[in-house]
Amino acid sequence: MIYIKDLKEHVGKEITLKGWLYNKRSSGKVKFLILRDGTGYLQCVLFKGNFAEDVFDNAEKLTQESSFEITGKIKEEPRAIGGFEMDVTSYSIIQIAEEYPITPKEHGIEFLIDNRHLWVRSKKQHAILKIRHRIVKAIRDFFDERGFVLFDGPIITPNASEGTSTLFETPYFDLGKAYLTQSSQLYAEAGAMSFGKVYTFGPTFRAEKSKTRRHLTEFWMVEPEMAFYNLDDDMDLAEEFLEYIVQCVLQDRREELEILERDISKLEVIKRPFPRISYDEAVKILHAEGRDFVWGDDLGAPDEAIISGKYDKPVMVHRYPAEVKAFYMKRDPENPKVALAVDVLAPEGYGEIIGGSQREDEISKLEERIKEHELPMEFFNWYLDLRKYGSVPHSGFGLGLERTVTWICGIDHLREAIPFPRMIYRNTP
Amino acid sequence: MIYIKDLKEHVGKEITLKGWLYNKRSSGKVKFLILRDGTGYLQCVLFKGNFAEDVFDNAEKLTQESSFEITGKIKEEPRAIGGFEMDVTSYSIIQIAEEYPITPKEHGIEFLIDNRHLWVRSKKQHAILKIRHRIVKAIRDFFDERGFVLFDGPIITPNASEGTSTLFETPYFDLGKAYLTQSSQLYAEAGAMSFGKVYTFGPTFRAEKSKTRRHLTEFWMVEPEMAFYNLDDDMDLAEEFLEYIVQCVLQDRREELEILERDISKLEVIKRPFPRISYDEAVKILHAEGRDFVWGDDLGAPDEAIISGKYDKPVMVHRYPAEVKAFYMKRDPENPKVALAVDVLAPEGYGEIIGGSQREDEISKLEERIKEHELPMEFFNWYLDLRKYGSVPHSGFGLGLERTVTWICGIDHLREAIPFPRMIYRNTP
Repeated sequence: MIYIKDLKEHVGKEITLKGWLYNKRSSGKVKFLILRDGTGYLQCVLFKGNFAEDVFDNAEKLTQESSFEITGKIKEEPRAIGGFEMDVTSYSIIQIAEEYPITPKEHGIEFLIDNRHLWVRSKKQHAILKIRHRIVKAIRDFFDERGFVLFDGPIITPNASEGTSTLFETPYFDLGKAYLTQSSQLYAEAGAMSFGKVYTFGPTFRAEKSKTRRHLTEFWMVEPEMAFYNLDDDMDLAEEFLEYIVQCVLQDRREELEILERDISKLEVIKRPFPRISYDEAVKILHAEGRDFVWGDDLGAPDEAIISGKYDKPVMVHRYPAEVKAFYMKRDPENPKVALAVDVLAPEGYGEIIGGSQREDEISKLEERIKEHELPMEFFNWYLDLRKYGSVPHSGFGLGLERTVTWICGIDHLREAIPFPRMIYRNTP
Repeated sequence: MIYIKDLKEHVGKEITLKGWLYNKRSSGKVKFLILRDGTGYLQCVLFKGNFAEDVFDNAEKLTQESSFEITGKIKEEPRAIGGFEMDVTSYSIIQIAEEYPITPKEHGIEFLIDNRHLWVRSKKQHAILKIRHRIVKAIRDFFDERGFVLFDGPIITPNASEGTSTLFETPYFDLGKAYLTQSSQLYAEAGAMSFGKVYTFGPTFRAEKSKTRRHLTEFWMVEPEMAFYNLDDDMDLAEEFLEYIVQCVLQDRREELEILERDISKLEVIKRPFPRISYDEAVKILHAEGRDFVWGDDLGAPDEAIISGKYDKPVMVHRYPAEVKAFYMKRDPENPKVALAVDVLAPEGYGEIIGGSQREDEISKLEERIKEHELPMEFFNWYLDLRKYGSVPHSGFGLGLERTVTWICGIDHLREAIPFPRMIYRNTP
């Protein structure tokens, strides 16, 4: 099959293409059918003189999204969409589409998501999903090229890494309830002790009742985990990783960024080094801005917006109060009130896209934390084993795919960053 | 950090490595510590004369899987594991491991899976998981290089593509029950109408009470879907795809195949074309072998073994009785009793690794099938839309990752083909 994206190899030749009608117009002696085939758009020109009258007229029947096959000679035409044009010699209709529900007029967002299976055909959604694909590839290439081993975590888990209050649950045969994973990190730690450097990359789930534009109940997360990395190494890797992703998209998806009217200059500056500030420094920034913020609280979305607003690059905020962070994070030996944690906040108000930390590697301290957090110790026996049999300093982080896509695309809401979004009030289509 | 896999760049230099003790032996004046760092193994040699006595003796404390850091000069040594050796100048112990539960003696499989978080450190499991990683990369590269767009399907779904009897379910806020996907195919079809060629690749779930070595409750599946492909095109793609995967593994994971004692000659023959036989021909083979098989039944594992045993390549069995296949498969216009389906059976008795078909593209027939299968029509409204708005002939298939890994590795059971296997009696660790 020949696709529109490859037309430059077919200039001057008669070829056949297959696809759907994007648009048409007519001016008596000539008809213009805009074909879309999923890889691009092509203006197909029918001159009346080249066809029997009924064949020429019949093309009028093609409604938006009707499927058809079309044959003709390709020529370069800088004024046409995509830079080529077809001088049509014949066509055949495959199916006449009913009146297509999505028209150029404005639709409400609920209507569009109800019709997500059709909405994904639109130019803007195409651009977003093609950027998503490029980001996924960049993520995998980055780790593959650096010797990380893919170490897929299980989706069905017997316990929760950070408490069970926000988990989806399912009956699991005779074993009682099982839960959908909210992070593969604990499993990735087992992988790091085996392979040195690993990454997991798959869907994760949160049953939080958050209705914000920054929450999906189902989202993809990549989680690298590295033996012998401390927090600084972790931040170095996160920085290199984000730069790599953004540069890949800039290199290969510029056309899609333009369709989204993304301000590309905001992405071009995403180069190392990124600013690194401690939580203490972040609190000072908030106070200087007149914000009523108490040391010890977690940063909320408005706080993150103020802090990231100070920079045109992602900012790495490290050493959070241990109280607001997960049990597995190592305390700073120089100040046990803070955890060796880092959150990376994307610029332009997009907020947290990465959360990471150095992990607690001393078994006695880890046991203490599990008790403090009132987590069931028996679920963590296997995890504690990682500290019994050759414990080493290690670190890792998690990057939320849809948040990253949303930021790079410059769009408003996570729901457009995944083919079929799942939110608390939506699990269809 | 320097890793063992890169030692050839460090010959003659003093370097520091970090990792775990794989093994040690001693002969009075010299100690051999075998370090593993996840990327390889290195013999580290301590000569008594080079150390203070207590420092030399102290190395005895290192038990299996203890973590340590070690510094010394690298030289080539063809007789040593991996071809290099370190003349040690100093070392420091990070953590002395408790008595490691997995020893060279034989362990029962349940014990090993209970300790899966440690078992993944073993050489054989390393080899399998590194081959898995290479297969995953081959799968993605194959589709990326051929213009397919990644189109991740949702895990949480409101309905089932093939009936709801074997699904995991979860309460979903105020929306009642939701189900874990058992295939992203229907969603991929929406993608194919949008992008022409797409693939989904993620975890899928079956709550079947199957206890065989060929079943996991959670497994990864890749599902390409192509607009304008008929069954023959679908088989061409499946064939090219399998050849590509096997050749990638042969090229880049030969060492791991050798660790697994895989008969590589059985993989080297996996080259196109593959045999294609109809179900009718398959039945004739079964009858010729004296098997009591009735036309219309689905092929069971023993039947598949007989058929695939006739060939040294994967065999593509097509045109199954429509009755035993899913509602969305198109009937053969030349014989409506059979569906335009194909199963690909791996050689050496590994059985089905791919299932695919041309999809029904006529809305009236699709509605008929949904009724015949007694599926709730209202769940398929969005899917039927794909036939209302520019329906086209289209096809696709699904490849089970763990079955493919099992076959290529030449191992017995799917449970070793994924980091943390999930079976009906097992959702830990």
